[in-house]
Amino acid sequence: MNEFDFINKVRGWAASRAGASSSLITHHSSLLAGIGDDAAVVRADSGKDILVSTDLLVEDIDFCRDTTRPELLGHKALAVSFSDIAAMGARPRWALIAIGLPKEIWNSEFVDSFYDGFFELATRYGVQLIGGDTSRTPEKIVIDSIVIGECSTGRAVLRSSAEPGDQIFVTGFLGEAAAGLRLIERGARLHPQFEQQPDDLDAQAGERHSIDHLLLRHLRPEPRVGWGLLLGQNQLATAMIDISDGLSSDLHHLSAESKVGALIDASRIPIDHVVTELCGRRALDPLMLALHGGEDFELLFTVRPEDVAKLPTRVDGVSVTRIGEIKESSHGIKISEGARVWDLEPGGWDHFKG
Amino acid sequence: MNEFDFINKVRGWAASRAGASSSLITHHSSLLAGIGDDAAVVRADSGKDILVSTDLLVEDIDFCRDTTRPELLGHKALAVSFSDIAAMGARPRWALIAIGLPKEIWNSEFVDSFYDGFFELATRYGVQLIGGDTSRTPEKIVIDSIVIGECSTGRAVLRSSAEPGDQIFVTGFLGEAAAGLRLIERGARLHPQFEQQPDDLDAQAGERHSIDHLLLRHLRPEPRVGWGLLLGQNQLATAMIDISDGLSSDLHHLSAESKVGALIDASRIPIDHVVTELCGRRALDPLMLALHGGEDFELLFTVRPEDVAKLPTRVDGVSVTRIGEIKESSHGIKISEGARVWDLEPGGWDHFKG
Repeated sequence: MNEFDFINKVRGWAASRAGASSSLITHHSSLLAGIGDDAAVVRADSGKDILVSTDLLVEDIDFCRDTTRPELLGHKALAVSFSDIAAMGARPRWALIAIGLPKEIWNSEFVDSFYDGFFELATRYGVQLIGGDTSRTPEKIVIDSIVIGECSTGRAVLRSSAEPGDQIFVTGFLGEAAAGLRLIERGARLHPQFEQQPDDLDAQAGERHSIDHLLLRHLRPEPRVGWGLLLGQNQLATAMIDISDGLSSDLHHLSAESKVGALIDASRIPIDHVVTELCGRRALDPLMLALHGGEDFELLFTVRPEDVAKLPTRVDGVSVTRIGEIKESSHGIKISEGARVWDLEPGGWDHFKG
Repeated sequence: MNEFDFINKVRGWAASRAGASSSLITHHSSLLAGIGDDAAVVRADSGKDILVSTDLLVEDIDFCRDTTRPELLGHKALAVSFSDIAAMGARPRWALIAIGLPKEIWNSEFVDSFYDGFFELATRYGVQLIGGDTSRTPEKIVIDSIVIGECSTGRAVLRSSAEPGDQIFVTGFLGEAAAGLRLIERGARLHPQFEQQPDDLDAQAGERHSIDHLLLRHLRPEPRVGWGLLLGQNQLATAMIDISDGLSSDLHHLSAESKVGALIDASRIPIDHVVTELCGRRALDPLMLALHGGEDFELLFTVRPEDVAKLPTRVDGVSVTRIGEIKESSHGIKISEGARVWDLEPGGWDHFKG
């Protein structure tokens, strides 16, 4: 397969998937030219703003070939960019993938499986693959995912508009992806039939299911697209960020951009019992994972007190939890545990730390 | 420097450069959020289409650290994406850079020099850096450049709309970048003071200048932004592609998309005497370089016969040359040299060839 055969192959996939999704989701904005030209051309509706996000995944830094699977990687590459668009309160619409592969991977089943995972998620949200680039690499796989989103004019939810008094919320549960990564580092691997296990795990489902659940939270994160859209369209979030670096770091980012402080209540941070139980047996601290563990891809957002009652209980089966309050900048960023209050230092992921 | 210091540093550069360019070039479309949020937000003018292009550059495949310089790499990463946008007849407006660096490079002067080269070109065209991503890599540098362009509604020039009878043109001269690459492969390096040499080289300027000129055509390609815009805005090009893989390959791409054939006149292909002379001394064939050598980043475009007289002689000092004619699909893609006519096989760059 040469590079141009490959482009035609991906173009065929993209065309067939676009047909599948267009019957489910109606969009007015249109794709005028996509894969197979020098650039993709899109026309936004009048009254829409355009959002662009990019995420680079590098083998042996952001993922390991022998602890994930190509289809999970295809999913994750797109999911992390969907999460960025969701964190702006916007709808993902179009995607581009730049992929660099060593020659032996190019000639393997990797590519087909990668795009299977990619298109499974893209189709679910009616997102079209409209372009990309391909290169060889000497040895490692690199993937750059680019997602273009849309929102109504002026409705993008920035990091910079939280105000003192706003209530701080997160979607879902924290620390699970970090727990999954720790398990992988200690040798855990996905069960070959993980897909056939029930999605809703309970204590009775057994430790094997719990482990797969945590591994998948790291290997196949679910972007909170539904929550992002709801919060943006209804102007319920004053500021928002996705938790990619870790709650502590991302709260610092949001607070720095908004020029505010924050107080988090440790007892309110949502930690699933799966994390608590597995951590207990493995000498890991669930609160540390929830505070500083990265890649949960949950949304961290702020809501005016008068709007709190307008939040739905769940979106796409995912709940939200109030974990604290935005304070004046002079307050700093603090966390309380019972009567104790201390500074919450950013402890999340930094590619170049140390 | 940690990752967030870095983001703030680049944000500072981007803000200062945006100010510098805004006095020169007036745009109506606006940037609503850029570096420092989850995604960049832009608002296109009504009546504008949005174009997105991405190009991946991988160390030791697309460039070598010891034969280029960081500022040239910063220029080239952006230039290749500008070239894609130019080939759509559109104006580049915004850029994102995803960059993966090994730790020792991160802590060197590489980053500053890279962005010097990047911003020099960006500022020249009033393009704003609005986002990106950063990752560590185990060993090699990888760069993904993303450029967002704009054109008037429906004016994007696709590859797919050439018609039989259209005249085929190229900008500038061909084969120079490939000649430069061959020289690098044979050990040639840029003179330390290459910047102080005259840009317009003639036979008297000496071989040293000629070599630097060819090396720079490979290491610091100039995207034909002015020509692209003129051809698009005035609807003079029926189809267009940039010559990144090589004239033969890119003519095949354009012809395949347009479902047409083509006849090229070998004697009309613009080859500068610098290439002819240096090739003669080094047993290289200038015509082979011009036909199959990649990375010239000139524009290959087609013009209706009645519009040929409307083409200006030069744009930004760059001329155009008519090299052939679009034929019916059944004609195939051929090249004539005097009385001989033969099939022009695609011979350009393929990352996964062989």
